[in-house]
Amino acid sequence: MTVDELIGRIGPLDEEAMRQARLRQARLTKPRGSLGRLEELAVQIAGITGQATPRLEKAAITVMAGDHGVVAEGVSAYPADVTAQMVLNFLNGGAAINVLARQNGARVVVVDMGVASDLPSHPNLVVKKVAYGTGNIARGPAMSRAQAVQAILAGAEVALAEIESGMDILCTGDMGIGNTTPSAAIAAAFTGLLPGEFTGRGTGLDRSGVKRKTSAVERSLRVNRPDPSDGLDVLSKVGGLEIGGLAGAILASAAARRPVVVDGFISSAAAMVAASLAPQVRPYLIAAHRSQERGHDRMLEWLGARPLLDLGMRLGEGTGAALAMFLARSACALLAEMATFDEAGVSEKQAP
Amino acid sequence: MTVDELIGRIGPLDEEAMRQARLRQARLTKPRGSLGRLEELAVQIAGITGQATPRLEKAAITVMAGDHGVVAEGVSAYPADVTAQMVLNFLNGGAAINVLARQNGARVVVVDMGVASDLPSHPNLVVKKVAYGTGNIARGPAMSRAQAVQAILAGAEVALAEIESGMDILCTGDMGIGNTTPSAAIAAAFTGLLPGEFTGRGTGLDRSGVKRKTSAVERSLRVNRPDPSDGLDVLSKVGGLEIGGLAGAILASAAARRPVVVDGFISSAAAMVAASLAPQVRPYLIAAHRSQERGHDRMLEWLGARPLLDLGMRLGEGTGAALAMFLARSACALLAEMATFDEAGVSEKQAP
Repeated sequence: MTVDELIGRIGPLDEEAMRQARLRQARLTKPRGSLGRLEELAVQIAGITGQATPRLEKAAITVMAGDHGVVAEGVSAYPADVTAQMVLNFLNGGAAINVLARQNGARVVVVDMGVASDLPSHPNLVVKKVAYGTGNIARGPAMSRAQAVQAILAGAEVALAEIESGMDILCTGDMGIGNTTPSAAIAAAFTGLLPGEFTGRGTGLDRSGVKRKTSAVERSLRVNRPDPSDGLDVLSKVGGLEIGGLAGAILASAAARRPVVVDGFISSAAAMVAASLAPQVRPYLIAAHRSQERGHDRMLEWLGARPLLDLGMRLGEGTGAALAMFLARSACALLAEMATFDEAGVSEKQAP
Repeated sequence: MTVDELIGRIGPLDEEAMRQARLRQARLTKPRGSLGRLEELAVQIAGITGQATPRLEKAAITVMAGDHGVVAEGVSAYPADVTAQMVLNFLNGGAAINVLARQNGARVVVVDMGVASDLPSHPNLVVKKVAYGTGNIARGPAMSRAQAVQAILAGAEVALAEIESGMDILCTGDMGIGNTTPSAAIAAAFTGLLPGEFTGRGTGLDRSGVKRKTSAVERSLRVNRPDPSDGLDVLSKVGGLEIGGLAGAILASAAARRPVVVDGFISSAAAMVAASLAPQVRPYLIAAHRSQERGHDRMLEWLGARPLLDLGMRLGEGTGAALAMFLARSACALLAEMATFDEAGVSEKQAP
């Protein structure tokens, strides 16, 4: 499989399924439109899946992990070791995303895309390590173009394996100390806005930390000159291995007509890479939430996506996606299970 | 039990449980505050329940139904028969709230507080009928003061029965054709704002319908002169029987230290009645969502509550509350189940 083949498989939404879903919405025992965005969401998912009454039983949350050479610039409040430590926390079920996955009956798939150390083998760890972390983007490229392709295809393979075992919906998640920095660089590269529009406090930087981060992003763009019309160029020069993996998983899920719940800041950067490579992926995306991280709104605007939740979250791991997935599942259940006016013997709206 | 006795049982939040919950939040494997409102929510629920790591296993959604004499003024897009028809739909499991309750493992408790017709007996229908609908508030009081008391105590009994069988959290829901009109009158009475600030399209009124509704609310206040310092006076003059029942259920749940998820426009009117009678009930309330119905924001402001969701919904039945309950449950699960830094062997934030 090549990236072009992957992209070539992503078709438009199924208009007929959406039409049928809209017709059914209008027959259900509720005032028209009274379920608000849940109605639109169910129609979108009908279009994605090609089913007039889609069901989202099996959800997978792919938490992709990678390290970042740019931490050498002092851009994170946490030491780089925490990436590997948190991977172990995921595998042991103690992280926020594990709790939310249990609440939701979703599967957590932990993927080593590029952690800087060797992790102990574990039955639930998928190893797709492309490299031991990226290069320091403030001084050179994150990775080679070949590695960017490898990361995307590895992420696609992870999604394809989940689809094989029946995944109905993908939730994206990330872990990587320092990864708001490449995400900010990606966002600045694609939108053309100033880096400072996308550099927030991350896991808890103070003011001077944010300054260092902004400077690192500025230098990453000056040194690497990523080409915003070439998603692979942006990913390889200022991206991250987990970001590449997520972009690949997003493309593969869309190609298989599975909805993708995009988590927060880092996942949105991955979605931007995916949408840059394949603009037709956009309608397959469900923006989970508005992250508290500075600039996330503008990334969502660029993607043309409107977040479902706004809870002041900024954790990553797929935590926002897991919560939004529940809304997507509820939206589909409402469409499928509610009685129609005829079935329930309920009178309809009176002519005015 | 009298209303005063009920109110007298509502104490302040448990500061010690909140302090312990906050301490634990700071030890969990996530940057501080990164779960945003879910962290605040878990702390609030700790204070409500008096438990440092509360769990919300059993949720009950009390859907209280009543009819409204004011429909004679042409204030609803649906015929009044729909109240009883929808009660049957609830009992048969075909309404939106049934679907969301199934998604959430919550119990739907359908209560006839004042439906205008006799409903067939059904094992899942709780009959607390105070009257066959209210009087037309545009021409006189909705009910007597004694009936208002009766409605509140009946609603409290419903909640107490659920608490007896282990309810951990109450979700409020309503059904009553025409009930955005008394809710608007209640909101205008308590806030002192103009009725037009609270008269929206309800289930789907056109512009002239909204005018009729505004006029009906204006007349209800002129004719009845409800006293905003007296919650029972407001309820009896311009309220509704399901609204009174919900106010009682809210008070009883707070008295038993159970959190209350307040649904949308009608439930917020009920919460205003409850908070007028017992100001100390406010911290027990969790505002589920911002309803699309005009003026709901201002009701929440008056209550001092910030909505969790903003999905353009305006259905009632407890649908917003059911979704928000999932967030509350997730917030508590995160607090209880996440590993601490020590447990997981994860390094903490570096000194800046």
